[in-house]
Amino acid sequence: MPPEVNGKTDVYLMLGDPVDQVRAPAALNAVFRRFGIDAVMVPARVPSSGLAAFVRSVFEASNILGLSITIPHKNAVMEVVDHLGPSARLAGAVNAIRRGPNGLEGEMLDGTGCVASLRHFGVSTDGARALVLGAGGAAAAIAAALGSRSDGAPAEIALYDPVPGRAQALAARFDGRLASRVFAVASSDPAGFDVVVNASPLGLDPQDPAPCDAARLAPHAAVFDILMKNQPTPLVRAARARGLRAEPGYEMLVQQVHLYLAYFGHVEAARAMREDAAFVRTLVYPAE
Amino acid sequence: MPPEVNGKTDVYLMLGDPVDQVRAPAALNAVFRRFGIDAVMVPARVPSSGLAAFVRSVFEASNILGLSITIPHKNAVMEVVDHLGPSARLAGAVNAIRRGPNGLEGEMLDGTGCVASLRHFGVSTDGARALVLGAGGAAAAIAAALGSRSDGAPAEIALYDPVPGRAQALAARFDGRLASRVFAVASSDPAGFDVVVNASPLGLDPQDPAPCDAARLAPHAAVFDILMKNQPTPLVRAARARGLRAEPGYEMLVQQVHLYLAYFGHVEAARAMREDAAFVRTLVYPAE
Repeated sequence: MPPEVNGKTDVYLMLGDPVDQVRAPAALNAVFRRFGIDAVMVPARVPSSGLAAFVRSVFEASNILGLSITIPHKNAVMEVVDHLGPSARLAGAVNAIRRGPNGLEGEMLDGTGCVASLRHFGVSTDGARALVLGAGGAAAAIAAALGSRSDGAPAEIALYDPVPGRAQALAARFDGRLASRVFAVASSDPAGFDVVVNASPLGLDPQDPAPCDAARLAPHAAVFDILMKNQPTPLVRAARARGLRAEPGYEMLVQQVHLYLAYFGHVEAARAMREDAAFVRTLVYPAE
Repeated sequence: MPPEVNGKTDVYLMLGDPVDQVRAPAALNAVFRRFGIDAVMVPARVPSSGLAAFVRSVFEASNILGLSITIPHKNAVMEVVDHLGPSARLAGAVNAIRRGPNGLEGEMLDGTGCVASLRHFGVSTDGARALVLGAGGAAAAIAAALGSRSDGAPAEIALYDPVPGRAQALAARFDGRLASRVFAVASSDPAGFDVVVNASPLGLDPQDPAPCDAARLAPHAAVFDILMKNQPTPLVRAARARGLRAEPGYEMLVQQVHLYLAYFGHVEAARAMREDAAFVRTLVYPAE
């Protein structure tokens, strides 16, 4: 790759609000460099009020080829794109957008990334009781992917969100479409669950309350906290202090890097990064 | 500076169509790195049809702090910004945009950059007859800056553009506002002019005709061709073959780097780069 961004460089944007915490740009830029791809991903902090106009207009630039979407826009941005991929349609959320032949195309890669992470950690969901905390875009993607697993869907997926009605609406969306029984629960109490995924933003701000009470986790429970900021979070620390398996969200990005590359058309780099997750981990996990 | 673009990185865009040829991103990125400024400039190739929507919407991203504008948008973008700086108002064109307290602010730095280049090359315009080829944004900025020189404005500035009426309209814009007599000419014939500036896009495409007939240049004439692509252009080569002073456009960017930095608020880097033009030249001029 050229040593510098130049006039021929293709551009990808990472959209969110906040964006301070995002790790995808550094990881993808390192991959671009390794494979001689003249492209760069830069962050764009866009408030919800400007989301639709920004996404529509930014593609007026022909060398801006794709967007990665993070909190809090994964649901709302769905309304802006013209065509949805199968995972986005099921989840009702989007975290990757590209220019297609007939307009903007959106897909949701979080769910596949989460399932691959749990597989990597050796956490089975086969016939399990899973609790997903949060009912936003990432939570929807994760529930959809867990409930669609042909290699071991949970028996039950419980959804919790502190905003009244939000978990119910998401559960209703999945009604009859997943292998798992999906339902909303009125409390974040993790007692009785085999797998607990924090897919809420709680923890992005150090002042946040814990998304659930770690003292109530079952003695065999596994915790996956998808945040990459402020890790290990109080939830992860408390679960580990009890001797439980508890993992931060880095692996979910590791497992999505090759998906992003493939979605953005970098087929060779995608194949190589799928086969060399160890290298991707050096880009995503914080230095020891 | 952090070794990689990350979630905290500020972003500047270089807007044009085409953008392949732009050298500002590589130069500014090297300066950002040298001064530990966590910022990056990336190109955005935006067609005229999408210009207004793009410029308005892209500032929805709070970490997108400024735009550099190149061909063919320097005139049209003036209508998009809310407040014009003095050089932009005089020239009727804009090549730098930033977010101000009351909306978007635009300024035009090309003219100052051109005058500083001529000074660097030891080309005097004091009382001279100057011919400016082109009547677009860069030509307007250059004519305005030449005609405003307190250290030696030309006696006459002739404007030529192949599009009928365009040079006349620009000359009318300057009527009574410059120290030089400004008028449109019906031919690109450089005979009789002391200084000839090519501020037209002719030469960006290798198939372009020369912007004027170098054989007709006065024996003492100096030529400044603001293009940075395909240099030395046929015009520069032909003038040099006749033993005339003829310079490509790199210096105009060199002399603007510190202006861009100041306009975008990087005061310390601006001061240092104004004092160390030799370093900036290593970033802008092609390697020998």
